[in-house]
Amino acid sequence: MSKKIEGFSKLSKNEKIEWLNKICFNNNEKAKDILIQYWNSDDRLQKLHDEFSENTISNYYLPFAIAPNFLINNKMYAVPMAIEESSVVAAASKAAKFWMNHGGFKSEVIQTEKIGQVHFLFHGNSKIISNYFDFVKPLFFKKTENITRKMKSRGGGICDITLVNKNSYLSGYYQIFATFDTVDAMGANFINTCLEEFSKIFIQTIPLYNNYELKIDDVEIIMSILSNYVPNCIVKSVVSCRVEELNSLEPNSKNFAEKIIKAVEIANNDIYRAVTHNKGIMNGVDAVAIATGNDFRAIEASVHAYASMENYSSLSNAYIKNEFFYFELKLPLAIGTVGGVTNLHPLVKIGLEILGNPNSKELMKIIASVGLAQNFGAIRSLVTTGIQKGHMKMHLINLLNKYQANEIEKQKALEYFKIKSVSSSEVENFLNKIR
Amino acid sequence: MSKKIEGFSKLSKNEKIEWLNKICFNNNEKAKDILIQYWNSDDRLQKLHDEFSENTISNYYLPFAIAPNFLINNKMYAVPMAIEESSVVAAASKAAKFWMNHGGFKSEVIQTEKIGQVHFLFHGNSKIISNYFDFVKPLFFKKTENITRKMKSRGGGICDITLVNKNSYLSGYYQIFATFDTVDAMGANFINTCLEEFSKIFIQTIPLYNNYELKIDDVEIIMSILSNYVPNCIVKSVVSCRVEELNSLEPNSKNFAEKIIKAVEIANNDIYRAVTHNKGIMNGVDAVAIATGNDFRAIEASVHAYASMENYSSLSNAYIKNEFFYFELKLPLAIGTVGGVTNLHPLVKIGLEILGNPNSKELMKIIASVGLAQNFGAIRSLVTTGIQKGHMKMHLINLLNKYQANEIEKQKALEYFKIKSVSSSEVENFLNKIR
Repeated sequence: MSKKIEGFSKLSKNEKIEWLNKICFNNNEKAKDILIQYWNSDDRLQKLHDEFSENTISNYYLPFAIAPNFLINNKMYAVPMAIEESSVVAAASKAAKFWMNHGGFKSEVIQTEKIGQVHFLFHGNSKIISNYFDFVKPLFFKKTENITRKMKSRGGGICDITLVNKNSYLSGYYQIFATFDTVDAMGANFINTCLEEFSKIFIQTIPLYNNYELKIDDVEIIMSILSNYVPNCIVKSVVSCRVEELNSLEPNSKNFAEKIIKAVEIANNDIYRAVTHNKGIMNGVDAVAIATGNDFRAIEASVHAYASMENYSSLSNAYIKNEFFYFELKLPLAIGTVGGVTNLHPLVKIGLEILGNPNSKELMKIIASVGLAQNFGAIRSLVTTGIQKGHMKMHLINLLNKYQANEIEKQKALEYFKIKSVSSSEVENFLNKIR
Repeated sequence: MSKKIEGFSKLSKNEKIEWLNKICFNNNEKAKDILIQYWNSDDRLQKLHDEFSENTISNYYLPFAIAPNFLINNKMYAVPMAIEESSVVAAASKAAKFWMNHGGFKSEVIQTEKIGQVHFLFHGNSKIISNYFDFVKPLFFKKTENITRKMKSRGGGICDITLVNKNSYLSGYYQIFATFDTVDAMGANFINTCLEEFSKIFIQTIPLYNNYELKIDDVEIIMSILSNYVPNCIVKSVVSCRVEELNSLEPNSKNFAEKIIKAVEIANNDIYRAVTHNKGIMNGVDAVAIATGNDFRAIEASVHAYASMENYSSLSNAYIKNEFFYFELKLPLAIGTVGGVTNLHPLVKIGLEILGNPNSKELMKIIASVGLAQNFGAIRSLVTTGIQKGHMKMHLINLLNKYQANEIEKQKALEYFKIKSVSSSEVENFLNKIR
């Protein structure tokens, strides 16, 4: 049979699985059973999840976990995190607990501006198009009132619209550059709907513009789309304590603080290190973003582009001032607590409720603080015991599952590896020995 | 009650949920019921998933879907994708189908080098440390043989180890810079274990080095860790067809091809556009990475840093040559098909089986091709109908669920919105009208 298929999307879920079963599994029912084993027993709930995407055949599980003891701006949170990587939630919880006892995270939202662009070409005199833009600009606001009404009633809407001349980069290239406040929504649909309307208005108004120099055919719209790059939608989180208070983590607190600072300096001067350093921050950021129904690809893209603003470097910073150790993180973060799947996915609703139903600014602060905690935990391990000790300890249970250890063997192994270093082959050897 | 808690990780899963229930839900059983509703009915399977992370209380569902009709290097694939964003799988499938009929994706792995570093400080004469490095270098290979044996037997191992002098960036800063071939594993654990051993060897060998100029205390190891930045682990995917063959997608194929090229040029000249352009690519890349058990944070970090190598710009490229339209994508991609959770997560195993159990190079080619398909689909919509039409059509069902439409109402709405544009308020209005 051929793997080529017509009308796959129109098949029922069962028919899709039957087809896969024929094509990829030689009609071996085992694969089918596994796919179905992951369905929810509640048919209505399963249907809801099926409808989130297209061609769905099952549910992919990410562990939904809790990192407790986050004290952020004097408020306690237990933070939901959805992530498959072992030791991430453990590291976040550990860092949170230490900082809870040392004043907690101080976090603030610095800006919340979202951005969208209509990209177009115009090869005439730039004066002509800029005069026309001035003429049409009020109409962008006026003719989108039915789209923006609801957002305005919540305190948001279109902030400003400017014409950007990018001719020096690409011949004839201009942008209608719009900024938005989307309040508690991530705002992608709202912004894109506005932008597509702007591009229509921009073209349709040309015949009404009493200037023989500009004709409809002179302007070519290429595309209208929000930007996931949000360098003016920024949140900051900081922790600090007296240097000697780090004693409860590491005996030589001065040396420990200096090593952390050195580790961050290294990440500011070496891209190979910076990428991994920031990746650790994103372990925490994405886990909370997913658990609260936000789009982690959008966040990742913006954060890493922001990190590359000058040379690609660390998003966090560490320093000592007046015998206080400071550790801080600044992130661009376009997220939402309403809209998208946030109001639909039952676990997202639970996730948001666990956080006390924050608005988007509060959630920005929580996410930045978890990113900072993650970074602190990772650097702490790196500059002291090394990352592998903690990571492999957490990964041990996966390795035991891999070699199909039973409960008694697991207990023995957990005991044995308390003082031995864990590796896949060491675990295999140990199990062979006791079996 | 306080949200502060001691020993949370030591509570059983039920006790954790009980605590949350008290603290966040006023003992309202509904939240508890929802968390439990998401557990798998097979206790052993659920336990396996609980053990992937720490403090797990439930499973977060991502839709597990299939994008069929991917022809890559003359082989057909149905591609598993785990993603929550509507219209991504639909767009990938649509693009795949078109290119299947026009020669398919041609994809090649260009390099597969992984990187790790031991970061250290040394403030003496650089000649001393470089001489010592030459002395110790053979020992790095020799004394890690028990760690590298298995990897070597699979054809991988440590490729090279060099000393990098970064003094001009940061006073006294050096790296032991190692490159690895990890074959079909992503290799993080292997690389980190090697690196931590290197740092031990580097320090422990100093007393054996017969040179009074170097003492143990002269060298301070800061940290040893792999890099997620892999600019020499590269895969490329290309599609091409005669320009007029694009007719079956858009009537004016020449104009369509030129608009795609212009859209890519724009993404090469404007960071606001480039970030979103690349985000669309990552919608496809991450979805396959997750469905095959790979770490998407590592991939995201590397890809976006790679995009920022000069100015942050597009990862894909489009051009016309000899009346052929070419569309291509080059990505750094450190992934694995063995190790990590790949051999443990039953749905990951199914995902890999659906792909015919590819090795890591083959999976790199598949992932890059899905990224390219996604980019093609997104740009096609952007330069023709606009992104909202397709996206909102796919999102319509979510909106209907949001307003709790029943099956009859859903059918009516799907009919009505075939020719009307979809927005949250329009859907609400329509439902109010027919109710």
